[in-house]
Amino acid sequence: MKYAVGIDVGGTNTRVALIDENYHLIERKQFSTDAENPEKTLDHIKDVINGFGYQIEGIGISCPGPLDLINGVILTPPNLSGWHHYHLTDRLQEKTGVRVYLENDANLACLAEAAIGAGKEKNYVQFLTISTGIGAGFCIDHKIYRGSKGFAQEVANSILWKNGPAQGELKKGSIESIASGTAITKRANDAGLEAAHAGEVYKLAQQGNQLAADIMEDAYEYLSSFLGILYGVLDPEIFVLGGSVALKIPGFVEEMERRTKEKVYDSLKENVKVVPAVLGEDCGLIGAACLVFEA
Amino acid sequence: MKYAVGIDVGGTNTRVALIDENYHLIERKQFSTDAENPEKTLDHIKDVINGFGYQIEGIGISCPGPLDLINGVILTPPNLSGWHHYHLTDRLQEKTGVRVYLENDANLACLAEAAIGAGKEKNYVQFLTISTGIGAGFCIDHKIYRGSKGFAQEVANSILWKNGPAQGELKKGSIESIASGTAITKRANDAGLEAAHAGEVYKLAQQGNQLAADIMEDAYEYLSSFLGILYGVLDPEIFVLGGSVALKIPGFVEEMERRTKEKVYDSLKENVKVVPAVLGEDCGLIGAACLVFEA
Repeated sequence: MKYAVGIDVGGTNTRVALIDENYHLIERKQFSTDAENPEKTLDHIKDVINGFGYQIEGIGISCPGPLDLINGVILTPPNLSGWHHYHLTDRLQEKTGVRVYLENDANLACLAEAAIGAGKEKNYVQFLTISTGIGAGFCIDHKIYRGSKGFAQEVANSILWKNGPAQGELKKGSIESIASGTAITKRANDAGLEAAHAGEVYKLAQQGNQLAADIMEDAYEYLSSFLGILYGVLDPEIFVLGGSVALKIPGFVEEMERRTKEKVYDSLKENVKVVPAVLGEDCGLIGAACLVFEA
Repeated sequence: MKYAVGIDVGGTNTRVALIDENYHLIERKQFSTDAENPEKTLDHIKDVINGFGYQIEGIGISCPGPLDLINGVILTPPNLSGWHHYHLTDRLQEKTGVRVYLENDANLACLAEAAIGAGKEKNYVQFLTISTGIGAGFCIDHKIYRGSKGFAQEVANSILWKNGPAQGELKKGSIESIASGTAITKRANDAGLEAAHAGEVYKLAQQGNQLAADIMEDAYEYLSSFLGILYGVLDPEIFVLGGSVALKIPGFVEEMERRTKEKVYDSLKENVKVVPAVLGEDCGLIGAACLVFEA
């Protein structure tokens, strides 16, 4: 049996898992990320890996973007202020002595869903995570599509609504400013509604609140337009939706499929399949192991 | 020296060219397409090929869509009413005895531009034609990206403007309903302006007509948003724009590059390159020959 380590560095926590070649998660540790000092976090990672006590084929690691995937460098993630321009891949290889593969979290989630999840046995898998933000990944024949410079599927800034809502540094009317959990909540709060997350906006809409209903309608409508565009551009076999907004709001995925079918050529409607992600929060870790085993 | 035949079947004319493996166009014939009877047009094609008097490696052929590329079948092109559900590839192979490759015109134009045109030496080439309609093709390493069922890059119906302008059978607010030559002209005519084509709408705008200027502004604005989305999804090395609207309206391509850069992450602006197609009206024929030589 072969083993790999999958690591998910988040702005708050870092998770490290030992995974076998059948994608079983053998062991898993979690600790706080040191947002100011990447060296400390890497030393902690090294100790955890040594603690596993297995010989490993390599390490797959995901980090908040933006990333320079080709050179293995963290660029400027807002939540990891001390990590900017840090040569993560090289440093972790030096510390552990094994090969390290860096990838962004949405690409890894796509790879995992394509390998053993909701996109299993499909060769063209479009993954989208609708959560705090909006991320995406696309796999062809179980390989991540990276584009010419490694920036493919950085879709958050896709402008679907001219002069639409703004959020943080994003472009006005970008899909993340309309349909992410953060955007849905912010728009509701800006309209005077009390809601701590998108699920609460959904509940208000269900209870008959028109403002909340309009905000949810915008999220459904623009996101399905975006899926329709992705369908036209890429002709995926399947869309896999993950993230708390897609998975926790009742009927969200079905609504996306229904609306997206209306936004493509009538003769192609039946090709549009939208399904929920199935691997849960460990999909990034499993995807990281896929990277190692498929290298 | 090896030779191929490239054929471009249009709603009005059919063009047949003999092309060598250096992509020189040796000879070229044009005749009227029989929109009611594909067999007659295929017999004519066969006679032209026999007239060339060269041994050929194969035939590449483009036809108006929608096409079933996988089975080589014409589906339901509005301009070729007698060709619906015609098994073009099989029939032309039977008549000529050589291998036939069917492809849509935008994919072939992309392939030609990627092989010897404006995208030469680039591995990720996004082609768009802004003409009567809006077509697109994407090549990775000089291969056409077709998607899971051969419908990739059917982008005309991409909805960029909720409840935006409508045109024919297209979805409301689809990019072809906003930025194609037909749409620009129709919108100007609907607004009471006299214009026979998009170039005349552009001229009216230049002369200070505000209605015309608004219509051109919409075309620039939504089309650049669409390029921004394509950039985010695909990370192409280069966008190549063809078609009469892109190539004949002064400054159109430069305006697209300038605006598209504003619609992507600031850190990625410099990666956005938009250039005009260089191969002219024969690019479909050259692309058809590429299909044969690269098969």
